[in-house]
Amino acid sequence: MINKMIENIKKTNAPIVVGLDPTMKFIPEHIKQAAFAEYGETLKGAAEAIWQYNKGIIDATYDLIPAVKPQVAMYEQFGIEGLIAFKKTVDYCKEKGLVVIGDVKRGDIGSTSESYAIAHLGKIKVGSQTYAPFDEDFATVNPYLGSDGIKPFINVCKEEKKGIFVLVKTSNPSSGEFQDRIIDGRPLYEWVGEKVAEWGADCMGDSYSYVGAVVGATYPEMGKVLRKVMPKAYILVPGYGAQGGKGADLVHFFNEDGLGAIVNSSRGIIAAYQQAQYAQFGAENYADASRQAVIDMREDIAQALANR
Amino acid sequence: MINKMIENIKKTNAPIVVGLDPTMKFIPEHIKQAAFAEYGETLKGAAEAIWQYNKGIIDATYDLIPAVKPQVAMYEQFGIEGLIAFKKTVDYCKEKGLVVIGDVKRGDIGSTSESYAIAHLGKIKVGSQTYAPFDEDFATVNPYLGSDGIKPFINVCKEEKKGIFVLVKTSNPSSGEFQDRIIDGRPLYEWVGEKVAEWGADCMGDSYSYVGAVVGATYPEMGKVLRKVMPKAYILVPGYGAQGGKGADLVHFFNEDGLGAIVNSSRGIIAAYQQAQYAQFGAENYADASRQAVIDMREDIAQALANR
Repeated sequence: MINKMIENIKKTNAPIVVGLDPTMKFIPEHIKQAAFAEYGETLKGAAEAIWQYNKGIIDATYDLIPAVKPQVAMYEQFGIEGLIAFKKTVDYCKEKGLVVIGDVKRGDIGSTSESYAIAHLGKIKVGSQTYAPFDEDFATVNPYLGSDGIKPFINVCKEEKKGIFVLVKTSNPSSGEFQDRIIDGRPLYEWVGEKVAEWGADCMGDSYSYVGAVVGATYPEMGKVLRKVMPKAYILVPGYGAQGGKGADLVHFFNEDGLGAIVNSSRGIIAAYQQAQYAQFGAENYADASRQAVIDMREDIAQALANR
Repeated sequence: MINKMIENIKKTNAPIVVGLDPTMKFIPEHIKQAAFAEYGETLKGAAEAIWQYNKGIIDATYDLIPAVKPQVAMYEQFGIEGLIAFKKTVDYCKEKGLVVIGDVKRGDIGSTSESYAIAHLGKIKVGSQTYAPFDEDFATVNPYLGSDGIKPFINVCKEEKKGIFVLVKTSNPSSGEFQDRIIDGRPLYEWVGEKVAEWGADCMGDSYSYVGAVVGATYPEMGKVLRKVMPKAYILVPGYGAQGGKGADLVHFFNEDGLGAIVNSSRGIIAAYQQAQYAQFGAENYADASRQAVIDMREDIAQALANR
């Protein structure tokens, strides 16, 4: 799947992943009203609104982008109905040829981590039958529990030829509370990065590993170091746009081959129509605003890479 | 909810939480066959088997225990149907007066963490209506992302009078890879423990905080230190039984008041009938075996506390 992701990136010339993180305040009124008219102001109504909203964005952008990253929390908060919308979104994106990164940040130990890996990347046996429960292509994983938490994911990745992105240095302001603390002269995130390289060494795609890393765009200097610590890990970079990361900050996350990083933008794309820059599209044409925002983001990154 | 949990513990004289972590290999054949006969070898069939299995255990033990801890991964691996069984289990346990600790180990940042908190502990607005999606009483939370990840959970906890258990020192063999690394002379888990005390200081129940901690029974010496670092945090202690923790190891997790810790056992209780010690019950009477295992665990802990 890492090979397919890279192929998609080359094809679209856009190392971009669109974060499908819908919230009610992003969804245009006309979509909400139609959904509530059909299902009432219920969890099912909300889930229908989310799904229709996502579908609009996917239809308007899928030919420009290699991948999407639905954030499961935004669906989980609508309970079972929300998770049905999550699953519909995953399936639809895959139909459209997109790579789906499930932003699930799961992490546990042993058989429990294995169950999460099965839930999101693998297959489960029921009697003589086999099912793929959520069936994303990649999942994000939390490393706090150590190798016992990561290896069950890697085992499933090997079987399914899928991948994970391990949280190394997250984009948020307080990420340094633990991640930046110095251990034997180096910050914790570097030790985690080193483990990512180690975990990934025995499950390589053609040029990059099945085991990638999450490093926030908001910390470009740390990204520069981590790029060297884990040269074969694809870096999923959140924090571009709304969180403050700029194109110029991103160059250090890429390798010399122009690959090695994929940059996420969520509300900057999916709620573009609510920004002054794209307000002319209007809520009715929110998906066209998203398309334009993808094009602008692609340009911003391409220019930054050309100028490095 | 911390007050209710303590009240339940005092009433039952059992600082015990039963981990409802069903896997197909724990579920007796007669339950699986009945479920598959009704729904086929499908995810729905598996979910029905899980639910019937859980119900048997809950009915046989609810009067002896204060709380249960369903591990959501074991349900999530059966997709939407599995999560429906999770929700049914949560609701049924609450009906029976049990405190429900959702072992979800979620953790993200800002509005995403808030969404997880809403999903598991809070309420979501849809138009003019309000819904409680999964509605557990407590949730386990991963601290790797720092305060930005924890505070949204605490805000929801304050509103709902619910609580969280933050992963501090986990029970697994590789937990030391990052958690034991020394920072300014003290291991990372102590720094996390100190933060737990800080986060919990402004959301106190009558005697303990809404913010608790997870510390594995397999590391009693570390438990001893952490008990002092966070005196007002209830400690959820996994790793008893199957993972190797013994009653005598547990005394350091408790405060002088005999409170402050609640010990989890999962397969040691729910799959007791598969152990030599309880084999005489047979698969048909698996729930009676679970009841006996709870009684034995209660005695083991009571004796250890009496002898300290």
